[in-house]
Amino acid sequence: MNTEDIIKEVKKLIKTIIPPSIEITNIELEGPDIAIYTKNIEEFANNNDIVRQLAQGLRRRVAIRPDPSLLIETDRAETEIREIIPNEAEITDIYFSPDSGEVSIEALSPGLAIGKHGSTLNEIKKRIGWAPKVVRSPPIPSKTIREIRGYLRTVIDERRTFLRRIGRKIYKDISDEENYVRLTALGGYREVGRSCTLITTRHSKVMVDCGVNVGSEENGSPYLNVPEALPLEKLDCVVITHAHLDHAGLVPLLFKYGYDGPIYLTPPTRDMMSLLQLDYLKVAVGEGRKTPFESVHIREAIKHCITLRYGDTTDITSDIRLTFQNAGHILGSAIAHFHVGDGLHNVAITGDIKYEKTWLFNAAVNKFPRLETLIVESTYGGHKDFQPHRKESAQQLKRIINQTISKNGKILIPVFAVGRSQEVMIVLEQLMRLNEIPKVKVYLDGMIMEATAIHTAYPEYLNNQLRTQIFQRGENPFLSDIFVHIDNAEKREKLCDDPDPCIILATSGMLNGGPVMEYFKAMAPDKKNTFVFVGYQAEGTLGRKIQKGAKEVQIREKGKPINVGIKFNVETCDGFSGHSDRKQLLNFIYNLNPKPERVLMCHGEESKCLDLASTIHQKYNVETRTPMNLETLRFV
Amino acid sequence: MNTEDIIKEVKKLIKTIIPPSIEITNIELEGPDIAIYTKNIEEFANNNDIVRQLAQGLRRRVAIRPDPSLLIETDRAETEIREIIPNEAEITDIYFSPDSGEVSIEALSPGLAIGKHGSTLNEIKKRIGWAPKVVRSPPIPSKTIREIRGYLRTVIDERRTFLRRIGRKIYKDISDEENYVRLTALGGYREVGRSCTLITTRHSKVMVDCGVNVGSEENGSPYLNVPEALPLEKLDCVVITHAHLDHAGLVPLLFKYGYDGPIYLTPPTRDMMSLLQLDYLKVAVGEGRKTPFESVHIREAIKHCITLRYGDTTDITSDIRLTFQNAGHILGSAIAHFHVGDGLHNVAITGDIKYEKTWLFNAAVNKFPRLETLIVESTYGGHKDFQPHRKESAQQLKRIINQTISKNGKILIPVFAVGRSQEVMIVLEQLMRLNEIPKVKVYLDGMIMEATAIHTAYPEYLNNQLRTQIFQRGENPFLSDIFVHIDNAEKREKLCDDPDPCIILATSGMLNGGPVMEYFKAMAPDKKNTFVFVGYQAEGTLGRKIQKGAKEVQIREKGKPINVGIKFNVETCDGFSGHSDRKQLLNFIYNLNPKPERVLMCHGEESKCLDLASTIHQKYNVETRTPMNLETLRFV
Repeated sequence: MNTEDIIKEVKKLIKTIIPPSIEITNIELEGPDIAIYTKNIEEFANNNDIVRQLAQGLRRRVAIRPDPSLLIETDRAETEIREIIPNEAEITDIYFSPDSGEVSIEALSPGLAIGKHGSTLNEIKKRIGWAPKVVRSPPIPSKTIREIRGYLRTVIDERRTFLRRIGRKIYKDISDEENYVRLTALGGYREVGRSCTLITTRHSKVMVDCGVNVGSEENGSPYLNVPEALPLEKLDCVVITHAHLDHAGLVPLLFKYGYDGPIYLTPPTRDMMSLLQLDYLKVAVGEGRKTPFESVHIREAIKHCITLRYGDTTDITSDIRLTFQNAGHILGSAIAHFHVGDGLHNVAITGDIKYEKTWLFNAAVNKFPRLETLIVESTYGGHKDFQPHRKESAQQLKRIINQTISKNGKILIPVFAVGRSQEVMIVLEQLMRLNEIPKVKVYLDGMIMEATAIHTAYPEYLNNQLRTQIFQRGENPFLSDIFVHIDNAEKREKLCDDPDPCIILATSGMLNGGPVMEYFKAMAPDKKNTFVFVGYQAEGTLGRKIQKGAKEVQIREKGKPINVGIKFNVETCDGFSGHSDRKQLLNFIYNLNPKPERVLMCHGEESKCLDLASTIHQKYNVETRTPMNLETLRFV
Repeated sequence: MNTEDIIKEVKKLIKTIIPPSIEITNIELEGPDIAIYTKNIEEFANNNDIVRQLAQGLRRRVAIRPDPSLLIETDRAETEIREIIPNEAEITDIYFSPDSGEVSIEALSPGLAIGKHGSTLNEIKKRIGWAPKVVRSPPIPSKTIREIRGYLRTVIDERRTFLRRIGRKIYKDISDEENYVRLTALGGYREVGRSCTLITTRHSKVMVDCGVNVGSEENGSPYLNVPEALPLEKLDCVVITHAHLDHAGLVPLLFKYGYDGPIYLTPPTRDMMSLLQLDYLKVAVGEGRKTPFESVHIREAIKHCITLRYGDTTDITSDIRLTFQNAGHILGSAIAHFHVGDGLHNVAITGDIKYEKTWLFNAAVNKFPRLETLIVESTYGGHKDFQPHRKESAQQLKRIINQTISKNGKILIPVFAVGRSQEVMIVLEQLMRLNEIPKVKVYLDGMIMEATAIHTAYPEYLNNQLRTQIFQRGENPFLSDIFVHIDNAEKREKLCDDPDPCIILATSGMLNGGPVMEYFKAMAPDKKNTFVFVGYQAEGTLGRKIQKGAKEVQIREKGKPINVGIKFNVETCDGFSGHSDRKQLLNFIYNLNPKPERVLMCHGEESKCLDLASTIHQKYNVETRTPMNLETLRFV
């Protein structure tokens, strides 16, 4: 159905559903949404059922938006809000959602902002047109989120134009010719790093993830330079499963080389992704390396983000619908489920999954309305890849810390800023609270604090217990005074020289650059110290070499190679992993509902992909495939 | 190595090999050849070893060409030749090969053209510069060949420009980055018809075959509209294994949509291909169907042909060398062997093969210097696909003919113009010569006579016996007076009305249009007559329906559907096939030297591909793959 037909259908449906008292001023296709503009926005708000009926009748996403004539300009609106709300409410942020005509007011004392029986809010509404919403300020303010909101406010018109262009493309007429569904492996197949997959049909071309292999000597890019991917302008959209660099690191590069379509991702993934991309640039610049893109391209990426929540089914092209489901791996991580054609085929790409409830997240979802083809990560797919239980890991960490501190040593834990850091923080806070380890300082370097802040801004993406603990019981482990933020070179140097025992969490997680390198250099030569790996170390990274027992390694300092002798104790705590171990992967497949026709392996070293494929085939009698990068499979 | 480097290397080598008495006037890269221009062309001609040494030293094709200043313009040269050579020599054609500076003079009495001790030739050489070569006129003149030669004479300059452009492209510098070798199935996989394969490396993109599925209701084109193939300008070259429409029918379409690179094929394939493409247009126009291209695109294709003989190894891109080997299927049919990189990988695509010596050709070659991947046709790969021996088939045909003639019936044999026609002609001539069947007329309709003429123009592509029989013993079966050419509708109509028993060979071979349709309509309702299939009938064709025993079929007459009841006797003589049967395919694989690492199936219905793949895997312990159209496999 094309734009005209859709709008006709909407008008027809509106006549039967919406009471004549509600005035519809405009209907537009904006990105995947059918946007209905009205001057009577409250009547919709008071009658949720109308929206539900519209969405069901149209089988599309419907968004009710206030007629633009009602809304005053955002800067003026902000001034008005700050005038009306008393200072004691302590506003920490004000941000506008032009899509919904809402303005969110973050305040430390929400009650004072709302006023008696909502009187202050009513006053605001009357003066600015925007619907005010008061929310409690997140426990830790995030610079990233504030900047993204600020930036988006400057590009409201541009974004509206962009969304309408995309809307027309999604709702275009397509021919009845034989359709097909293909997958092209562009990166991250039979390897870990640079994840990138193309899903193509006769009418659509969707890229899923666009990561960088941070352990690669060369540029570590997926095969973007092949005819299947070029020209980038011909991609319909990019879907990002989660924010880690090996899945999203090169998204800005796409914009550098001409892509200008949407990026579909969850809201936390958008923010985390930008944070990690900026950090990637920073680390590269710090090491004097050439960067594959500039910060302007990160902003372009942000401008083109269309966020979707778990479970929202959305038309992303003329013949593909996308639904994200929780993947359990990091904040906002998602399994991407694609429904192609009218029941032609269903493909799900897991991204990275944790099929176990962790300290932070619920276990990955593995129920789908339909599913013929599954692409599953295989990081720990080898026949020996069993991880200890999370509780055992905490005990192991406790033992390591106690032993090291008793020798007056320091503990260095290299972490991804996102995911492992927060898990380890929760465990350390608990161990100290229960006096199981001495109360030493836990220093957080790199982006860890900022990533933690983003976690607290999206409580609905955390598991129930943690959410309850933070928001209902007011016991936020992240706010414990054991944590000390290190945010400059001076503090870092001082910490390195400090003889007192302590615990340091620093990025990057695989020792390919970042602040962890300074601590590593300072601490490696002293056998009192301990080095603890809590995450996956990819082939080719310095982390992998150290984990494998190297006695001396070469690193670069200001562009020059230097040798570092390794005397400190090296330990690995596997149970903190955000990846499913082999047993969890097999359980994930076993419990899949429905059972797919075929399972493809990705995101694992070659032997692990082959090993897992063969076991799944034998155990569950499902066709398995282990494509190589640059191969294309056809499902229909 | 780039153009500059190559030319430097040539100059250096020339100094050490060529005596200073020989003056080199220019060195150019022309298509795959290194062309060395000289004013002393005879000295080269007298010393073959110099060229051999140059070619070996450079590891490239070397062509010695006369300096253009020596050659007079072709029209004037032709006038001079005709003046000098006496009329009694009976010149039938004169054609110029600007590449070699030769002019070929076809004459019925070659001796008279040469003159005493070559005196006439010497005189010609002196007056026109071109080196004259006298050849005996082929027994049957071919209009196709005459027209192609005539056309090429009008585009000599254009072709030189084209060849130099291609030369520069082939000898360009390439980077040392990781290379890869991939195959994309664009048509003719798990099906018969529209054969089309892409071989891609980091530096090259080669299309092998570009056929049309003549049995298809829709356009029957390979998947040319996918990103892997587009834009067509980005293809480095097209390689054609043989002339049949299911392998070469849509080559002109490539030129219609912007391709302007070379087509590599054997000399007979070029001529046969043009003939069949023209006939394809003619048939389509005759039936009022839309044609996918025009005759101007066929001419474009001819202009871009670079012919290679069996066994000539040729650089076709910066990292691929091609060698054609005899495939035994039809005149000029070839197995295409690709050597990628400097020993990186070797792939051979069989095209259609006959692994048995036939009345016309030697058996397909299956020895290669190196071979890791083989793509083999599977037309008769099913476990029941055994053909009778050729002699048995001749006996079967004899029986059928005798039975039909004894009932005063006619025999209609639908044939491909190229291949099966000539085999059946040889057998019929022999049966009549030996009085094993009555001497009735054998009518040839469609392009059969013309195709036969092309066969006699390329005796070096026929098997030894036939060549000896025709050219040494002077017994040309094709010239027997039993054969009568039908070349217009009037004759055809008269023949249909003629009550006398006879044998009719008519195209097309699968009853998708062509003159055979007229005979079919006239003869099908009479049970005295017999219909004999001697070639493969693809799924979806009318031939297949009749072969399967349909009692009534619908055909189109002047665009309108009409029903034809089938009463005549339907027979199949499998032994005339130009395809290997299952036993021959298995023997071909078994006798391959060297044994490849993997074998891919193509050009067979799905079940036959799977069946053959499984048998080869089990019997010979080789990896087998049965890609689907639109899939891409990677070998390195």
